[in-house]
Amino acid sequence: MTTKLNTTDFAAMEQRYRAAFFNSLGGFKSLTLVGTINSDGQTNLSVVSSVFHIGANPPLIGMIFRPESAERHTLDNIMQTGQYTFNHVTTNFYEKAHQTSARYPREVSEFDACGLQPWYSEKMKVPYVQESNVKLGIELAERIDLKINGTVMLLGKIVEVFIPTDCIEIDGFVNIEKAGSITVSGLDSYHTTQQIERLPYAKP
Amino acid sequence: MTTKLNTTDFAAMEQRYRAAFFNSLGGFKSLTLVGTINSDGQTNLSVVSSVFHIGANPPLIGMIFRPESAERHTLDNIMQTGQYTFNHVTTNFYEKAHQTSARYPREVSEFDACGLQPWYSEKMKVPYVQESNVKLGIELAERIDLKINGTVMLLGKIVEVFIPTDCIEIDGFVNIEKAGSITVSGLDSYHTTQQIERLPYAKP
Repeated sequence: MTTKLNTTDFAAMEQRYRAAFFNSLGGFKSLTLVGTINSDGQTNLSVVSSVFHIGANPPLIGMIFRPESAERHTLDNIMQTGQYTFNHVTTNFYEKAHQTSARYPREVSEFDACGLQPWYSEKMKVPYVQESNVKLGIELAERIDLKINGTVMLLGKIVEVFIPTDCIEIDGFVNIEKAGSITVSGLDSYHTTQQIERLPYAKP
Repeated sequence: MTTKLNTTDFAAMEQRYRAAFFNSLGGFKSLTLVGTINSDGQTNLSVVSSVFHIGANPPLIGMIFRPESAERHTLDNIMQTGQYTFNHVTTNFYEKAHQTSARYPREVSEFDACGLQPWYSEKMKVPYVQESNVKLGIELAERIDLKINGTVMLLGKIVEVFIPTDCIEIDGFVNIEKAGSITVSGLDSYHTTQQIERLPYAKP
């Protein structure tokens, strides 16, 4: 049986119900821990499911911040330093990743509160998550404030990456399933994946 | 062993290698068939992995179009009618969905060429994919041209949805894994999912 819902039904939904509903409706999402630091050296870590690919040349990656969210410490830090890291999440620490979504005070580092290890590369001043399998170092390229609903979109330039060597395939494809990355649906549902197959370039 | 790559390495990559690399680096992505129609009544269908959640109230969903891509017929049609549909993909027809990425001429409908059935609701003039388990009807809200790399971002308002009734959980979460939706990594790697668990709202 199929349920049909329209704008009248959406408007009648209770707020948390509506958030759970639409967060799961777009499909499976990337699961990322964002590492930042402020100008006083205070680190921050937040889990996001709003990362999306923008382009490969130059390598650009986007992220959405919802208004009034716990992630705003992250946004503040990025605006201070111009840098951040994206760190894939695995089955080994997804509960800790989820815990970073709690509303900790600004003076608390989620690295300490949630039991994850900061790790620094030679190039970036912002922390990576040591436990993470795939790490991306990013420099802020552009901020776009979406007037339509008060969200903020950041476009970032990928400047360095750390990947398990045996997960980079011959044609450049990074096998993130082999690397252990997992996916998220909605606000709180975590999923491993099982590759069906890679399909060849499609021709008419 | 970990491979470290930086901007110098990125610049040295062959173009297709670079595209495969960065398309897989952001994490697992939603897999969506976009249904459109032009002002002459010609339908079009294209597979995209660039859909992302923007907000629940109002329900907004984003999509990126890369420059010079086969998806431009889709963009042209949306600019003509202001409407489009998002249709989740399942294991039953992911090969057909992939085939829509071939560069068919404008006068060919991918519904015919790839063997998928158009279906129309009472409200929208654009086609849904009958085979799809989760269907979203969308009205264009805003177009943003990203000067940074020539991509186009569309922000759309969800105006109706069709979902298997038994996949809507008590708190509003839509269990898209139960509905049969799959995910994609990179440009061509298709994956089913296995739910680990849903975690409760995190508190400090």
